Amino acid sequence: MTDTETRRTFITRASALSLVIPGVGSALVACSPRGGERAETTAAQATAAQATGGSHNSDSRLDSSVLRGRAGAATGAPVAGASATTYHRVAPELPALAPGGLQRLSWHAREAPVRIDDTTVVAAWTFEGDVPGPIVHTRVGDTVEFTLTNDADIPHSMDFHAAQIDPKQAFRSAVKGQSVSFSFKPKYAGAFMYHCGTAPVLMHIGSGMFGAIIVSPRDALPAAKEFVLVQNEYYLAAPANGVRASDYQKMLNTLPDIVCFNGRPNQYVKDPIHVKLGDRVRFWVVSVGPSHPCNFHIVGEQFDTVYLGAPPSNSIRGVQTFAVAPGGGMVFDLVCDVAGEFPFVNHGFGHGQKGAIGLLVVES
Amino acid sequence: MTDTETRRTFITRASALSLVIPGVGSALVACSPRGGERAETTAAQATAAQATGGSHNSDSRLDSSVLRGRAGAATGAPVAGASATTYHRVAPELPALAPGGLQRLSWHAREAPVRIDDTTVVAAWTFEGDVPGPIVHTRVGDTVEFTLTNDADIPHSMDFHAAQIDPKQAFRSAVKGQSVSFSFKPKYAGAFMYHCGTAPVLMHIGSGMFGAIIVSPRDALPAAKEFVLVQNEYYLAAPANGVRASDYQKMLNTLPDIVCFNGRPNQYVKDPIHVKLGDRVRFWVVSVGPSHPCNFHIVGEQFDTVYLGAPPSNSIRGVQTFAVAPGGGMVFDLVCDVAGEFPFVNHGFGHGQKGAIGLLVVES
Amino acid sequence: MTDTETRRTFITRASALSLVIPGVGSALVACSPRGGERAETTAAQATAAQATGGSHNSDSRLDSSVLRGRAGAATGAPVAGASATTYHRVAPELPALAPGGLQRLSWHAREAPVRIDDTTVVAAWTFEGDVPGPIVHTRVGDTVEFTLTNDADIPHSMDFHAAQIDPKQAFRSAVKGQSVSFSFKPKYAGAFMYHCGTAPVLMHIGSGMFGAIIVSPRDALPAAKEFVLVQNEYYLAAPANGVRASDYQKMLNTLPDIVCFNGRPNQYVKDPIHVKLGDRVRFWVVSVGPSHPCNFHIVGEQFDTVYLGAPPSNSIRGVQTFAVAPGGGMVFDLVCDVAGEFPFVNHGFGHGQKGAIGLLVVES
Repeated sequence: MTDTETRRTFITRASALSLVIPGVGSALVACSPRGGERAETTAAQATAAQATGGSHNSDSRLDSSVLRGRAGAATGAPVAGASATTYHRVAPELPALAPGGLQRLSWHAREAPVRIDDTTVVAAWTFEGDVPGPIVHTRVGDTVEFTLTNDADIPHSMDFHAAQIDPKQAFRSAVKGQSVSFSFKPKYAGAFMYHCGTAPVLMHIGSGMFGAIIVSPRDALPAAKEFVLVQNEYYLAAPANGVRASDYQKMLNTLPDIVCFNGRPNQYVKDPIHVKLGDRVRFWVVSVGPSHPCNFHIVGEQFDTVYLGAPPSNSIRGVQTFAVAPGGGMVFDLVCDVAGEFPFVNHGFGHGQKGAIGLLVVES
Repeated sequence: MTDTETRRTFITRASALSLVIPGVGSALVACSPRGGERAETTAAQATAAQATGGSHNSDSRLDSSVLRGRAGAATGAPVAGASATTYHRVAPELPALAPGGLQRLSWHAREAPVRIDDTTVVAAWTFEGDVPGPIVHTRVGDTVEFTLTNDADIPHSMDFHAAQIDPKQAFRSAVKGQSVSFSFKPKYAGAFMYHCGTAPVLMHIGSGMFGAIIVSPRDALPAAKEFVLVQNEYYLAAPANGVRASDYQKMLNTLPDIVCFNGRPNQYVKDPIHVKLGDRVRFWVVSVGPSHPCNFHIVGEQFDTVYLGAPPSNSIRGVQTFAVAPGGGMVFDLVCDVAGEFPFVNHGFGHGQKGAIGLLVVES
Repeated sequence: MTDTETRRTFITRASALSLVIPGVGSALVACSPRGGERAETTAAQATAAQATGGSHNSDSRLDSSVLRGRAGAATGAPVAGASATTYHRVAPELPALAPGGLQRLSWHAREAPVRIDDTTVVAAWTFEGDVPGPIVHTRVGDTVEFTLTNDADIPHSMDFHAAQIDPKQAFRSAVKGQSVSFSFKPKYAGAFMYHCGTAPVLMHIGSGMFGAIIVSPRDALPAAKEFVLVQNEYYLAAPANGVRASDYQKMLNTLPDIVCFNGRPNQYVKDPIHVKLGDRVRFWVVSVGPSHPCNFHIVGEQFDTVYLGAPPSNSIRGVQTFAVAPGGGMVFDLVCDVAGEFPFVNHGFGHGQKGAIGLLVVES
């Protein structure tokens, strides 16, 4: 199958045209068997995007991206096996620190079908084949050595919010087959976001390229059971052969279809997080957006401590709900002195109701 | 009049079908004299809800709700007298503490028409017949003994954000005629939300089942004139016989028709809050959403102190505007050293302009 | 040319009818050569506004405005030269303090075409002919003497968030040809918003009448290169003769076309801000909305200090992203110990992607 045919097949199957960005759509439409019909849609989309100022975004140097003239749609082969894609729960436990203060990571950017519930498979853009990407755990002053290799047809990159580094070099985009490497030592503790920084960033975050890097302070925080929750929004095109592409115009309209923790709606309702009575529980909460905060709340409990800035300082105490800004992270400590089943939610319920609900079971 | 006839009458009058949730609409449509026509609307709504992942929400165990197979629409008789419903201003003054450190509350969940301004009567779901429900005032370590009796056809429950308690038991839903009782001692001071926690929570909050429980600290804060402001959003169907039902699809779309303090748009513009020059004024602000923050601001003044967490600590000083997250509460202190008329607003004006404006008159 | 003719011309050219508010549209439509056609649109708009509770807003006394019976649309002659309007970059540097602790300002409210990028000229309502208005820099305890003269056909006013003053007097509206004067001494340091407070405030902020007043503390903060960023949203009607009027219904719908810093999308990408390695950089960030926060973030860096309340206290440290509420301001300090090109963004990318991106170049 030629490249063109593969692309055409994907477009037909997964409605990937919803991912067009201005100036790119017309080229893709030419590949589509339904070109004439889609061209109208695309013109409308282009007009809408124009109205939103979208035409300038692909020219921005945001996050030092180099995307010009070839970007725009989810592509290719990964969708072939989509309907057979199995669901798996994302483990929320904070992983152990790497030994010796050195974290070596070699990741691949690639497209992959990701099953997020019984009825939905997303044609995702990913780090390491899943949404979110792997949880990274490091410590202030330790070293992270990172390499990204791009397996996808369009450029991708990596932006760690925990790094102090020249983004023009370190966060530059790699084209297919290329690798980019950099290393850094985190200066501040906290729950940090990482994401693909290639323009338009909205599309890359919205299509699945994000995750959390947790930086523990040098002096340990109070002992706790520690979990990582990454809230994200999905903006999806109608299913085609059981697969839903991401829809860039929906992202610009900021009304998500699904909002959830760790990439799957309500996954910790189906399969809760368990702790013991008397435990201190620490949620490292990252809100990757792309557009909305996580108004984090635990039903039946209050937070002992919320770290607004770098722990162990910068905290407030006795909190029912606090908003984690999109692109931000905060740390929420809870003392489990009551047994029971405690839902944790995004209490902005117009969004939270779309899947940002989980269950913390405190066993006596 | 039979139960079926009462329901049919209500549906015709108040467009209650706009409150349908997926899987429930069809049953209600069968009761409607305009079934065929409404069925189309409902199908469209169901599709839209499906697209937003809504179909999974009624299965969530959010807030330990037990809603399965029978929920979904405002019902029944209360609308009969709607056009005669009178308007009343909601007193914003913080009520006195209960004597002896014990607050005993026995409330009813019931449907009621609530007039929120000259032209609008809402077919509300309520605690104690009004929106918001009564202000509760207690103190850290005091006891609240609470009983909810459900007078409505669909299940309801109570979730106090000030309680540390197993929500699976205490916040469980009661069906019609049943009561649920529990008691708790607040651990932290603050302005806390309460609300019905029955799924889908978005619908129960959005339909009027919310209010504020204010927890004073053991050591008194600086003496002040104290007021309680609960910001909420209304999402309303078109009027039918002068009554507007709540619209669940609008709630999911997060674009409210009205945003206001204490349940009525601009009520404290029409009938302001009065204090004296030299007073310290304390606003206990609760943002019940369901979806948006309250960006609280007073025109012509700044806040001496904003308590982000539990007072008397966890504060910042010298603030023009601060966002109270949906599902959250904060405490705002103002020193009135200038006489005049000071509007207090949600300075997110796309929402604030829809009624979240009041007037504080400082008399010399 | 008579007044009526001027108005008619403007309406035809700039689609100003999109600015109608309920109860005003019909009068304006009568002036339009396309009255019949537009009347339908206006009726639809009025219905929509009615549905959103808009009909009550022009009666509010918000910010002591006096707008009654004559407001509503951008007007007149300034659009005549719109297509010749040139673009200029807005200097972001914090200006020096006025000598002697006294800042005397005499400003005019007037309508003006403002070119915000190569393809867009906005029919703006302005302070001093530009969007945003001039940056004001004063100090705690210093005096600001301010006079506003209104050159426009509809009433305007000034609301400084840094002032403690009776808004009913000081922030009252001036009709065409009138002036209003007042003076004040800021009590708290911070990054404060100013804006026209005439009802409906949403329309006046949304049409360009805003800016920043920076209040430095008496005891100097750590020496820094200081910049002012004002984030605003544009809601624009379709272009007519190259000019785009503001659209009030879009403002109520809260989905902006453009979100940007200092009034121009991506202006500091095109022409970056330059500092030196080792500099401390201070951004005084004001989010004027009208509706959305600025989730401020710098790619490749973290903030050393974010002042949530009045500096030099009320701060948190080690922050990747923090939300500045609409109507609010915060101060962000950055220590530039790495050279490179660092994009600063609103990390709520559904909005940020619409132009709230700039570039900080740290030169070695």
